[in-house]
Amino acid sequence: MSNSKELRINGDRLWEDLMELASIGATAKGGVCRLALTEVDRAGRDWFRSQCKKIGMTTRTDAIGNVFARMEGTEADLPAVVTGSHLDTQPSGGKFDGAYGVLAGLEVARTLYDNNIVPRRSLEIVSWTNEEGSRFLPVMAGSGVFAGVHKLSEVLTQKDGTGIGFGDALYSIGEAGPDLARPAIDAYFEAHIEQGPILEAYGECIGIVTGALGQRWFECELTGFEAHAGPTPMELRRDAMQGAAAIIRGIDMMARSIRDARATVGMIECWPNSRNTIPGRVTFSIDLRHADVATLHEMELAMRELVVDHAAAMKLEWAIRPTNVWEPCQFNTDCINLVRAATAELDLPCREMVSGAGHDAVNIARIAPTAMIFVPCRDGVSHNEIEDAKPSDLVAGANVLLSVLLARLNR
Amino acid sequence: MSNSKELRINGDRLWEDLMELASIGATAKGGVCRLALTEVDRAGRDWFRSQCKKIGMTTRTDAIGNVFARMEGTEADLPAVVTGSHLDTQPSGGKFDGAYGVLAGLEVARTLYDNNIVPRRSLEIVSWTNEEGSRFLPVMAGSGVFAGVHKLSEVLTQKDGTGIGFGDALYSIGEAGPDLARPAIDAYFEAHIEQGPILEAYGECIGIVTGALGQRWFECELTGFEAHAGPTPMELRRDAMQGAAAIIRGIDMMARSIRDARATVGMIECWPNSRNTIPGRVTFSIDLRHADVATLHEMELAMRELVVDHAAAMKLEWAIRPTNVWEPCQFNTDCINLVRAATAELDLPCREMVSGAGHDAVNIARIAPTAMIFVPCRDGVSHNEIEDAKPSDLVAGANVLLSVLLARLNR
Repeated sequence: MSNSKELRINGDRLWEDLMELASIGATAKGGVCRLALTEVDRAGRDWFRSQCKKIGMTTRTDAIGNVFARMEGTEADLPAVVTGSHLDTQPSGGKFDGAYGVLAGLEVARTLYDNNIVPRRSLEIVSWTNEEGSRFLPVMAGSGVFAGVHKLSEVLTQKDGTGIGFGDALYSIGEAGPDLARPAIDAYFEAHIEQGPILEAYGECIGIVTGALGQRWFECELTGFEAHAGPTPMELRRDAMQGAAAIIRGIDMMARSIRDARATVGMIECWPNSRNTIPGRVTFSIDLRHADVATLHEMELAMRELVVDHAAAMKLEWAIRPTNVWEPCQFNTDCINLVRAATAELDLPCREMVSGAGHDAVNIARIAPTAMIFVPCRDGVSHNEIEDAKPSDLVAGANVLLSVLLARLNR
Repeated sequence: MSNSKELRINGDRLWEDLMELASIGATAKGGVCRLALTEVDRAGRDWFRSQCKKIGMTTRTDAIGNVFARMEGTEADLPAVVTGSHLDTQPSGGKFDGAYGVLAGLEVARTLYDNNIVPRRSLEIVSWTNEEGSRFLPVMAGSGVFAGVHKLSEVLTQKDGTGIGFGDALYSIGEAGPDLARPAIDAYFEAHIEQGPILEAYGECIGIVTGALGQRWFECELTGFEAHAGPTPMELRRDAMQGAAAIIRGIDMMARSIRDARATVGMIECWPNSRNTIPGRVTFSIDLRHADVATLHEMELAMRELVVDHAAAMKLEWAIRPTNVWEPCQFNTDCINLVRAATAELDLPCREMVSGAGHDAVNIARIAPTAMIFVPCRDGVSHNEIEDAKPSDLVAGANVLLSVLLARLNR
C-alpha cells in the first residue's frame, strides 16, 4: 500500500460536514441539542445515511437503533473493520463530541471512494445509539447492547424523564431495526475529541489512546446534629459539613499522591442548608478513576479510611453507597500499534494516553480488537455549547484514522 | 421585701399555660406553627390578652403590633419594668421559644396579683411582633422598631414570600395599633430557653446572660473551571469544591483556636453539581460570632486571609460579600447583678454566659437597662417541633424572673 502514504482526507470537506451536521439541532449559543431518539436525532441519522449512500454505501439499523453504513471489500465474507462514534448530544452539547468520530469515518470512506480504492475487508461506519445518556440511561446504550454489556429488553424498557419508553421512542422515529445481528468485527477504531486539557496543554495533536480508566462512583452521607449556629460552642458540635470538607480535601490529596489517579467530588447537598444552622446532614458524590484495577481498589480503601476516620473524629454517622463501577479497559496492542505507526508516519506531535471518560469503544473492546484516536479540543471543554476544536487537529486525526483503517482493511 | 423570699410562682399553672398556648397553631408532630401576623398569631395574641385581663391588666398594641399588658404600680408615673419575649414561631417551631418569656412574665404578674402585692413601679409584659423573621424580614422586627434600630415605615413595606405586605398583614389581623408610643423603660428582662446545649451539658438550670455575641455573616463565592472529571488530570484542575472544602475546614479550625469564638458554614451550593464534572463554582455562607468586637474583627481578617490564600493556591477567583452585621451586646451590670443575686438566693446551679443567638433583648438593650435569664432545653434543640424543656427548669427560671422583677419594681 505504498500509495496510502500519499493518501490524505479532504479537510475542508470534513469541516463542512461537521458544520452541516451541527445545523441539525443547532442552539442559539452555537452548540447542538440532538438528544437521543428525538426527531432531531432522526434528522441527523437521515443526513448521515444520505451522505453514505452518495458514495455507494449500504445502510442498516439494528434493533437498538445503531446505524451501520457498509462499503464492501473485495472479500466481503471477512469480518469488517468498523469505525464510528455517536450522533446524539448532550442537551447543551457541542459540534464535535461524537459527530467527529462518525464524520471522520465518513471522510475516510469518501477518500477511498474518490481514489477508487477497494480494500480486502469491508469498511463499516457506525453511529451508536444514545451514547450520552442525557435522555435515557444507560449511557453508551447502543454499543453496550451490541457488546452484550446490557440486555436489549432491559434497555428498551428504560423511561425518559417524561415517562416515554426507550423502545417506544426508538419506534416512533422509525429507527427500531428488525434484529440485533452482531457480525464478527475485525477491529474497531474510534476517533474522538479528547474532552480534556492534556493534548492542548502539552501542544500535541494526537492522543494514542491505550485504554480507559476504571471508574468507581460512590455517594457518601454524613449525619451529625442540626443545631443553632449561635448558641452551640465549637466543642459541642457534630457538624456534618466539617466532616464533608475534611473528607473532600483528603480524597483530592490522596489522588494527587498516586500517579495518574483522578478523584472528584462533583455533587454536594446539605440539610437544612440554612446560614445559621449547623448542618445535620451532608451527602456528596465521589468519583475515583485509575487505569490499574489494583490501584483503583487501593484508592477505594483509602477513601473509605478517610470517611471512617474523619467521621469518628467528628462524632458523625456515615454511609458509603457504591453507585457505579466500570473496570479499567486495555485496548488491543495491535490496534494501538497501528495508531502509533500512523502517527509516526505522519510525523504528528502525539502522546500515549488513557481515556478518562467512557466511550463506545470501551464497550466494543470487550468483543473486538479496539483502539481510539484523540484530538485536542479548546480548553479541554466538552458537553458545552462552546466546545471547539481546530480544523488542523481534526484533519490530522482523520488522516491517522485513514492510515490505520487502510492497514487493517488490507490485513 | 422579706416576704419575696418565700414568694414562688405556680409551676403547674405556668406549664398548663404553655400547653394551652401551644394548642394554638399546634402541629401533628407536637410542635407549633404560629407564623407572625397570621390568624393563628392573632389567636395567640387574643389568648394572651384574655389571660392578662383576668388579673386586671390593661393591654395596648402599638403601630408595629407589639402587645403590652400593664399592671399599674403605686407610682404609675415612674418608668415601668418590662418583661416578655415573642409569641410568633418558626414554621416548624416548638412550644417554648418565645412563649416561655411571655408566659413567665404572665405567671409573675399572677403571683403578685394572687398575693395582693402592688409594687412601686408598674409591670408591663410585652409580646414583640415578628421575632422569628420566618415570614417577614427583618428578624426581631417589633423590638427593632421599638428600639429605633429599624424605621417603622421600612418594616411595614416588607413583603412575605407571597407578596403580602407587613403593614397589610398587620392591619388584616387587627393588630395595627394607633401609634408608636415609646415610654421610658426602667429595665427590661427576658426569660428564654437557651436554644443551645451548654446548660444541659454542664447540668445547670439557670444561664445568667451577660450579653450577646456579635455576628458577621458573609457569602463566599469561588469560581474555578468546569471540566469533565475523567479526562482532566489533578494538576490541570481549577476545582471550586476543593477551594471551598479547604476554606470551610480552615474557618472551623480558626474558630477553635480562639476562646469562645464560633464559626459556621451552614449553606453550600455547587454548580453544575454533577457527579462527573469538576465544580466550576461553589458558594457558601460564613457566620462568625464573638462577644468582643476586636476579636470578631480579627476573625473576619483571618477568614479573608484563608479565602485569598486558598483561592490563589488553587487558581480560583473569589468574592466575599458581607450579608449581615450585628455588633456584640453587653447587658446592664445592675440588671445582671439582680439575676446573679436571685439565682444565689434560690440556690440554683447556674452559669454566666453570652447569648449566641439574637433576641429581642439585644434590641431593647440599646434603649434600656437589660438582662436575660436562660433555662436549658433538651439536647439544645430549638426551631424544631421536638423542642422540649423540663418543667422544673422552667419553674426555676420563672422564680428567678419573679425575684428580679420584684426587686426592680420596688426600686
